[in-house]
Amino acid sequence: MRVLGIDPGTRVTGWGLVEERGGRLAQVASGVSAPRGDLVTRLAEVAAYVEELIQRWRPEAIAIERAFVGRSAASALRLGEARGALFAVVGRSGLSVADYAPATVKVAVAGSGTAEKDMVARGVAQLLGGTHVAGDATDALAVAICHLRHAAFASRLRPAIDSGRARSTRVTGEPQRKTDRV
Amino acid sequence: MRVLGIDPGTRVTGWGLVEERGGRLAQVASGVSAPRGDLVTRLAEVAAYVEELIQRWRPEAIAIERAFVGRSAASALRLGEARGALFAVVGRSGLSVADYAPATVKVAVAGSGTAEKDMVARGVAQLLGGTHVAGDATDALAVAICHLRHAAFASRLRPAIDSGRARSTRVTGEPQRKTDRV
Repeated sequence: MRVLGIDPGTRVTGWGLVEERGGRLAQVASGVSAPRGDLVTRLAEVAAYVEELIQRWRPEAIAIERAFVGRSAASALRLGEARGALFAVVGRSGLSVADYAPATVKVAVAGSGTAEKDMVARGVAQLLGGTHVAGDATDALAVAICHLRHAAFASRLRPAIDSGRARSTRVTGEPQRKTDRV
Repeated sequence: MRVLGIDPGTRVTGWGLVEERGGRLAQVASGVSAPRGDLVTRLAEVAAYVEELIQRWRPEAIAIERAFVGRSAASALRLGEARGALFAVVGRSGLSVADYAPATVKVAVAGSGTAEKDMVARGVAQLLGGTHVAGDATDALAVAICHLRHAAFASRLRPAIDSGRARSTRVTGEPQRKTDRV
């Protein structure tokens, strides 16, 4: 199972490709896209960049970090724009996509929903077999790992659950919809 | 000058193509896209739909209605996602894009920033020479008209202004950046 993790931002988008083979996680590749220019140009470039990543690396699923949205409607709008540009590309690819709240990602890689940045980085490096993890891609690798852990959990549960709901794996939205995705 | 106006929404996206010939406005085409399915599927479909519109109708500019964002960060995020999916496509097309606040659009077509829905509809129909205007596309046609009026105004002013700033027409964001676009 190969998952492309994406950490979308209004200026910098991190990505990381994590593979699970026989219960072990490995970093395949990672990087960042930080295009310049006005908003529309940047979003179009990030979308094209992610489209290329999907074509080149052929992930089986995509996991997106749902950045924290504070009370500011203006910053939520900006973040939504970054997400929407990604969703348009990901949706076109037909791949399953899930998004995870920051706290869920932190629990998955560092054991605590309030883990600090350096604890997350150490957890990610450790889970990926001690490989070097580029700073900007840490959160993207973390959300990919988070998805692999949730997917492993879900696949253990799935046989007990009505398989007619399998198509709901395409739906984003966690934790509200977590029960749909299991 | 041919402008594609878009009224993005989380469920329904209206569009309208307006042309200006010798000072007169005419409706070329209009419609709506209301795809079903989960968020990612819908955004990808709207993006593909708008991409087809651009290829088929070859507009020279795109104008987007910036829907009212209240205080809710959650609804701003959703609206941002709809905008981002559009921006990714529009940015790829290389066309200039501008967005306008609802009040600016209302002033342009109905003479008042607080005009009611039916006043906007009457204004649009009248400005388009009395042609039939489909309800769902009214706001999209209105923002296209708004852009044509602003563009006409800007072109009258432009000779007096440093032409080195012309590339800022690609930037969205109004009214904060209105001075950049003139």
